[in-house]
Amino acid sequence: MTRKPSPPVRHFEDYPEGAVFELGSIRVEPDELLSFARRFDPQPFHTDARAAAESPYGGLIASGWHTASLMMRLLATQFLSPASSLGSPGVDELRWLAPVRPGDELWVRVTILSARRSASNPDRGVAISLIETRNQEGTLVLSMKAVNLLRCRARA
Amino acid sequence: MTRKPSPPVRHFEDYPEGAVFELGSIRVEPDELLSFARRFDPQPFHTDARAAAESPYGGLIASGWHTASLMMRLLATQFLSPASSLGSPGVDELRWLAPVRPGDELWVRVTILSARRSASNPDRGVAISLIETRNQEGTLVLSMKAVNLLRCRARA
Repeated sequence: MTRKPSPPVRHFEDYPEGAVFELGSIRVEPDELLSFARRFDPQPFHTDARAAAESPYGGLIASGWHTASLMMRLLATQFLSPASSLGSPGVDELRWLAPVRPGDELWVRVTILSARRSASNPDRGVAISLIETRNQEGTLVLSMKAVNLLRCRARA
Repeated sequence: MTRKPSPPVRHFEDYPEGAVFELGSIRVEPDELLSFARRFDPQPFHTDARAAAESPYGGLIASGWHTASLMMRLLATQFLSPASSLGSPGVDELRWLAPVRPGDELWVRVTILSARRSASNPDRGVAISLIETRNQEGTLVLSMKAVNLLRCRARA
């Protein structure tokens, strides 16, 4: 079942340090694994089942950028909010820790590592998060630390 | 014009420290900017021209993951080689430095920061690269440091 994006209404104040957000899961559709890889990452272990079987991975694996993009879908629809999200200047320590296979179900958890209001723009803040993506067996497949710029709640 | 992927034949020894690779360019197709964002990053400044015009970005911008994926296409087809590429454990300091707009032309350059043969597996090596993506005006829009595992040339 495809769920229409229904992002929550949240502001900077709703992402306090230490908060944990469980974002649910998203499936790695086998067709999309191939179409994404053919367009963006046409290496044989992503696009060619036979070549992948003979690679060190022993079978097709998703492009790391596809895995990151699937994670981003859950971030955009279940974590960030159009009411406050102002984008991201970047991420650190992006790690692909285990292969992602066709049909895997990816579960995303976000932990707020720090949240501080901007000194120069007190109507916004900066949150730094640890984002962890696990497969259906609980294996950590991707982790990263992301920076997000967020609007504060308007004052009454 | 779409060019069929024709990756070069390279091995670890062909990525020495200090080497610079110019990978050519890839266009940010307006339709793909929207379809990528609707699927993977449905935030209004990526998917809705009217909302984007009223955002701090002043108009539609590409998802940072789309920009990274376009960069990856040039890495897969012009830099890495099926003869040696064994994948990547991750990237550091991924930065989205300037907005990427519909129709932009993105140029990618890779500089090898370090290259060392594995002590435990002397048939392979690890290269760390600075990857810089600029638009048609020369503005740096994305940079990152990537780690790549690479097979060495087979001995005669």
